[in-house]
Amino acid sequence: MKIAIINGPNLNLLGSRETKIYGTQTFENFIEQLEKQYPNIDFHYYQSNVEGELINELQQVGFEYNGIILNPGGYTHTSVAIGDCIAAITTPVVEVHISNIFAREEFRKISHISAKCAGTITGLGLKSYELALKWLIENK
Amino acid sequence: MKIAIINGPNLNLLGSRETKIYGTQTFENFIEQLEKQYPNIDFHYYQSNVEGELINELQQVGFEYNGIILNPGGYTHTSVAIGDCIAAITTPVVEVHISNIFAREEFRKISHISAKCAGTITGLGLKSYELALKWLIENK
Amino acid sequence: MKIAIINGPNLNLLGSRETKIYGTQTFENFIEQLEKQYPNIDFHYYQSNVEGELINELQQVGFEYNGIILNPGGYTHTSVAIGDCIAAITTPVVEVHISNIFAREEFRKISHISAKCAGTITGLGLKSYELALKWLIENK
Amino acid sequence: MKIAIINGPNLNLLGSRETKIYGTQTFENFIEQLEKQYPNIDFHYYQSNVEGELINELQQVGFEYNGIILNPGGYTHTSVAIGDCIAAITTPVVEVHISNIFAREEFRKISHISAKCAGTITGLGLKSYELALKWLIENK
Amino acid sequence: MKIAIINGPNLNLLGSRETKIYGTQTFENFIEQLEKQYPNIDFHYYQSNVEGELINELQQVGFEYNGIILNPGGYTHTSVAIGDCIAAITTPVVEVHISNIFAREEFRKISHISAKCAGTITGLGLKSYELALKWLIENK
Amino acid sequence: MKIAIINGPNLNLLGSRETKIYGTQTFENFIEQLEKQYPNIDFHYYQSNVEGELINELQQVGFEYNGIILNPGGYTHTSVAIGDCIAAITTPVVEVHISNIFAREEFRKISHISAKCAGTITGLGLKSYELALKWLIENK
Amino acid sequence: MKIAIINGPNLNLLGSRETKIYGTQTFENFIEQLEKQYPNIDFHYYQSNVEGELINELQQVGFEYNGIILNPGGYTHTSVAIGDCIAAITTPVVEVHISNIFAREEFRKISHISAKCAGTITGLGLKSYELALKWLIENK
Amino acid sequence: MKIAIINGPNLNLLGSRETKIYGTQTFENFIEQLEKQYPNIDFHYYQSNVEGELINELQQVGFEYNGIILNPGGYTHTSVAIGDCIAAITTPVVEVHISNIFAREEFRKISHISAKCAGTITGLGLKSYELALKWLIENK
Amino acid sequence: MKIAIINGPNLNLLGSRETKIYGTQTFENFIEQLEKQYPNIDFHYYQSNVEGELINELQQVGFEYNGIILNPGGYTHTSVAIGDCIAAITTPVVEVHISNIFAREEFRKISHISAKCAGTITGLGLKSYELALKWLIENK
Amino acid sequence: MKIAIINGPNLNLLGSRETKIYGTQTFENFIEQLEKQYPNIDFHYYQSNVEGELINELQQVGFEYNGIILNPGGYTHTSVAIGDCIAAITTPVVEVHISNIFAREEFRKISHISAKCAGTITGLGLKSYELALKWLIENK
Amino acid sequence: MKIAIINGPNLNLLGSRETKIYGTQTFENFIEQLEKQYPNIDFHYYQSNVEGELINELQQVGFEYNGIILNPGGYTHTSVAIGDCIAAITTPVVEVHISNIFAREEFRKISHISAKCAGTITGLGLKSYELALKWLIENK
Amino acid sequence: MKIAIINGPNLNLLGSRETKIYGTQTFENFIEQLEKQYPNIDFHYYQSNVEGELINELQQVGFEYNGIILNPGGYTHTSVAIGDCIAAITTPVVEVHISNIFAREEFRKISHISAKCAGTITGLGLKSYELALKWLIENK
Repeated sequence: MKIAIINGPNLNLLGSRETKIYGTQTFENFIEQLEKQYPNIDFHYYQSNVEGELINELQQVGFEYNGIILNPGGYTHTSVAIGDCIAAITTPVVEVHISNIFAREEFRKISHISAKCAGTITGLGLKSYELALKWLIENK
Repeated sequence: MKIAIINGPNLNLLGSRETKIYGTQTFENFIEQLEKQYPNIDFHYYQSNVEGELINELQQVGFEYNGIILNPGGYTHTSVAIGDCIAAITTPVVEVHISNIFAREEFRKISHISAKCAGTITGLGLKSYELALKWLIENK
Repeated sequence: MKIAIINGPNLNLLGSRETKIYGTQTFENFIEQLEKQYPNIDFHYYQSNVEGELINELQQVGFEYNGIILNPGGYTHTSVAIGDCIAAITTPVVEVHISNIFAREEFRKISHISAKCAGTITGLGLKSYELALKWLIENK
Repeated sequence: MKIAIINGPNLNLLGSRETKIYGTQTFENFIEQLEKQYPNIDFHYYQSNVEGELINELQQVGFEYNGIILNPGGYTHTSVAIGDCIAAITTPVVEVHISNIFAREEFRKISHISAKCAGTITGLGLKSYELALKWLIENK
Repeated sequence: MKIAIINGPNLNLLGSRETKIYGTQTFENFIEQLEKQYPNIDFHYYQSNVEGELINELQQVGFEYNGIILNPGGYTHTSVAIGDCIAAITTPVVEVHISNIFAREEFRKISHISAKCAGTITGLGLKSYELALKWLIENK
Repeated sequence: MKIAIINGPNLNLLGSRETKIYGTQTFENFIEQLEKQYPNIDFHYYQSNVEGELINELQQVGFEYNGIILNPGGYTHTSVAIGDCIAAITTPVVEVHISNIFAREEFRKISHISAKCAGTITGLGLKSYELALKWLIENK
Repeated sequence: MKIAIINGPNLNLLGSRETKIYGTQTFENFIEQLEKQYPNIDFHYYQSNVEGELINELQQVGFEYNGIILNPGGYTHTSVAIGDCIAAITTPVVEVHISNIFAREEFRKISHISAKCAGTITGLGLKSYELALKWLIENK
Repeated sequence: MKIAIINGPNLNLLGSRETKIYGTQTFENFIEQLEKQYPNIDFHYYQSNVEGELINELQQVGFEYNGIILNPGGYTHTSVAIGDCIAAITTPVVEVHISNIFAREEFRKISHISAKCAGTITGLGLKSYELALKWLIENK
Repeated sequence: MKIAIINGPNLNLLGSRETKIYGTQTFENFIEQLEKQYPNIDFHYYQSNVEGELINELQQVGFEYNGIILNPGGYTHTSVAIGDCIAAITTPVVEVHISNIFAREEFRKISHISAKCAGTITGLGLKSYELALKWLIENK
Repeated sequence: MKIAIINGPNLNLLGSRETKIYGTQTFENFIEQLEKQYPNIDFHYYQSNVEGELINELQQVGFEYNGIILNPGGYTHTSVAIGDCIAAITTPVVEVHISNIFAREEFRKISHISAKCAGTITGLGLKSYELALKWLIENK
Repeated sequence: MKIAIINGPNLNLLGSRETKIYGTQTFENFIEQLEKQYPNIDFHYYQSNVEGELINELQQVGFEYNGIILNPGGYTHTSVAIGDCIAAITTPVVEVHISNIFAREEFRKISHISAKCAGTITGLGLKSYELALKWLIENK
Repeated sequence: MKIAIINGPNLNLLGSRETKIYGTQTFENFIEQLEKQYPNIDFHYYQSNVEGELINELQQVGFEYNGIILNPGGYTHTSVAIGDCIAAITTPVVEVHISNIFAREEFRKISHISAKCAGTITGLGLKSYELALKWLIENK
């Protein structure tokens, strides 16, 4: 079973910066843990700060993988193009957010992406990714 | 470990009505399954169509239970009072929705409750409840 | 043929208070008249000031009765949950209002309920109920 | 007793076009039925696609007829001038709509006409007209 | 010197109806008075309830007359087309309103016409027309 | 002289929870103090988390008591039905809030209740209730 | 093959007025050119300043012609009724605009008509009509 | 007969600055002309850039003068306090504007003052003042 | 104990004008009464129609007085600068309004001042001032 | 004559995916057809999912080519930067859309790009590109 | 070279109050420093809490000085009249703010003044004034 | 001392295009001048049209440089992701704009970036960069 984890802008800073909010664990380290916990899953990890490169990647994996876990970061609130892409591909996408975006600025309540995903998991830390994974595995 | 599952308006119809959208499983049946799967968890299930009774229940369990899984149904979009209650109690609350509310009417994008919860799981069917449960167990 | 008439908040005050606007006839008295006029109809009358109890009642009668006449009063403008309930039940619902809500405050122009009903009759006094009844009888 | 039925734009297509939504009965045919059912009523029927001609007609019948049944069609949502006219004439006007306009596009929720009418009947098919008629007869 | 006075919808009812608000003088009578007072002016009076006929008339007089006094009535708030017409013709147009439209409903504060006119006189009764006339005479 | 004090949702938590914001005094304790200070007043205290039960209570006391002090809590910002009730009853109602709701979230600036009350006292702690009481006594 | 070209308000002024923006060619002259260029097409040209007459014409040609090229002029932004008419007829309609309406006033960005047409060609001068024609011919 | 002319902010610059838009005539010079033309009127002229001083002046003249001509300048769009003052005084106030404020920035379409005046004359240059004067004289 | 009472625009008209709404008592007279009732309080009264003079006064008394009772009148809804001033001074400010501003025009529901005050008392007539005074005395 | 065709995000999926909506023809195949049909045109085709790369390309061709046909895809509704680029280059740009974006989600009605283009062709399938081409050829 | 520095409401409190946010330096002290640093500049400093007095001052210096540095304080967000004044005078105005107003309340994002100034410097402390000064010197 | 200057979309066209608005100086030329003027500063210049590449660059220099001068161009109004990046890095960022964006289109008044920067300098031409530089040097 092939699962892609795709992270949007600024999520490459995870673990080394703003550690009070996001903790000290790097995402690479987190992926390693996941791989140990789920040895039967073939993980693919991709991060980019570029909106269009996220679209490229979603198109790449979006017809062959069994599931995509997407954290669109700041593009959540501004990208129609990523939303269009998710609607066009056939792999189910679960949107995740580490922090509770509903408890932050007003503009973070708008999303062009959530409506196009299978579902959304928000505010549950890095566990958000793992819960999305569990759902993709069991829902398959 | 004590977990309360609290369902809001119209969720008592689950399983017997609108089965195309929500499936044929009743919530009572789903709870039984959960209890078998998680024998160490002391589950408490409550459903009400009355906004204020949901607040009563949240206050009841909100200082002693280890976690609350709340599906506020239609009150998600209109209840300041439930949001105030979640802010006042000390037990962590995970908001869940069976269907993807972001893919439905425009007014379902407004929530007075999400900002006050630990996190939100949306659109992943009855699995939304189980994922919330997993998070509450592991996060404890 | 079984018809339920369900009245929302403050409609219990009808006939005894604000008689200049709403007339001196009580709703109980009006129901009696209807029963005489329509001896073949099995009427069920329910009033509550509690949003959730209105939902309970709608669920109760909403799968077996032949028609529901609903005056949601002040909940017309704020209740997503009642709208959800009407969408979930199978009995046709006609929304009625005694006064012309479009000629009152701006916030009374918003409704989460009208879109889910078969139709709406507004501003025609207690006759609104009778016209709804006629439609339910003839449309059956 | 003299009753005018005034239909706005595109209602002349009724019965021959879009029969799935509006049925196969023409409005002329419907009027004939009404005339048989209500032999004591002197019916006057007028249809126009022109906003100002509807105003001309409302002014014509609006001081002498006993009642007006008005379906303003698409002008419901855009015409201040028809609303002004209804406020200026003395005959009571009941606004009717065949389909449930609240369940359609967002812009159909705005009306400059409803506030100026005695009441509104929406979504009850051609029966909307007959119910309006009954109210005008009994309210006289 | 040729001056056109063009009145929009419902202004033909002036003088005979709603006399408490608008007075008992008919517009025809008022024009006669103006003609006596200003014997050197060649007056042309036109009234229509039809938006497009007002445009026809404005186009007719809008390249040859010395001035136009326009009361667009209810079309003030909804007609882009009349505004476009005033921008296209070359005769200066003064917009007039008998009542103070700013002291009425909220939707009467929107105008697509005022920006295209030379100026606007509002709320000064039938005198609004005479003041507009004086300006057109002196400004010529 | 009979005065009713009616508290809305979550105000039953007062004194035992969130004591940093709201102090350590319970409302029951506060009422006792008031009763000692104002021995000639016949106090009636009611609290409910249910919107409709607050309406029931307002109707109960709203035609016979000399004054009502109402803290609608979270329903302040969402309840048209409580506002309608206050408009329907004859006893004067003073709305009170312990905290300054204008200095909190944006949505707390909207009220469907304030316009229907005699007046509002906001932000002055439990003293808000006593000041409302003084006004009701002196204004009687 | 029968093609109707229907022009809305103020487009009759084309060629003689505001020639800097719209050029010096009259629409009649342009139609003659088209007829020469496309001798196999049976052209029907209609212009009116009256919203309802445009609807009359659309209904007239809208079930028998092979295509309609419609420039709704100022009614683009205000007419629900023309939009409803296009939805009701069966001939495909291509909306055209001579100037780029998106580069003009803010209110010209709203359209009740575009969503009901097959497509829209905007800003390409009188060529807009010819391109629409080509599409109707080839798409037939 | 006593008439006050009150000018708001920046109108003291008239005649010496921005002469392309406002002409080269100073307001003092214009007043002198008016005084010659209307020898029986006792004119009082006041200008201030201070919102509250305009209120002081309106209160001063607002109970004894026969009419006030007010150009509130930039305060037109922001001053609730001047609007309140006009509602409180008893002398009729005519609002005037030299330029057509409807043809300028969007924010100039909002007024808290127009609704409280007898009427408004906009865009007719300094003639706006004279027309207001004529109305005050004849309406007296 | 030193208390400043500061009144904003048009409140100097109190008692002599609009006596139906505001009563016949002048504010000076009301202050005298207060001084008799509260002989131990050193009252300072200031009124101005000028926004900036109210700021001057607030700055003057805002670091030394024990309390300020402020009725900002029409500036309530438009003054960011007064709100900034209250945030900058250290004396507690209670905002008062004689009439219920929530029951008046829509624009009176916006305040830039309430959020910066300790609390607000609205709609309780001149008693609003006395209640504010009581709170300042007891809260000291 | 050199013409650039530039396609935005997700348009590379054309022909192989969502064939029900967009048809089975790939864009590469369509370009080949165009090249055969228009042998004298030097075509340049570019597609990218990256907003900034579209800007790079527009800058590249925007001063030397004779025309640009741009389908900005999802960036139509969110990109100020592409709009700025079109305003900065000198080659005329025609915006095209395969589907009728006005008949889709509400957010697709907003464009920061249309106002900066020569014109827009929407909803006419792949023919939209060819019509844009014809206009660029003839308008040269 | 003559430079005026004009400060709006509450900026007279600088240095002595709220020193945590704004520092302990008074503005007078800051001006002295500037005078020493720029001995060839003839500085003029003015502060007022009164909107209209700021306009008076701007008019005073606005035709003869070489530059104006304006901190409009709270009037930034509410004053159309100051914006009008800046448009009317000929001296270039640079708007400055000590704190980053974009990072504060939502209403501080609206400005009627910035558009009329040469430029704006925000959030750079008292250095904002000095940078504005440098620009005025070098740009002269 | 290391200073990065980062320019967003279309700023690479500076100096060669639209020279009337932006002048004839290229940015490269301007940097050279700066380097001569400030020989002790180690300048790093970067320009990209790609939103995500700007984020990459900001992350690169954002933890080691002494200051960043950022002109986000068109991304100012649409990029949440760049704003998030500035909040995540530790180097102070000064936002600059060559032209006065407040005096341009309405949508240029919205910024997701300004609130996250130390300050903003707008409208002062290329001098905006130099003033930002001065502040970064002196503030260090």
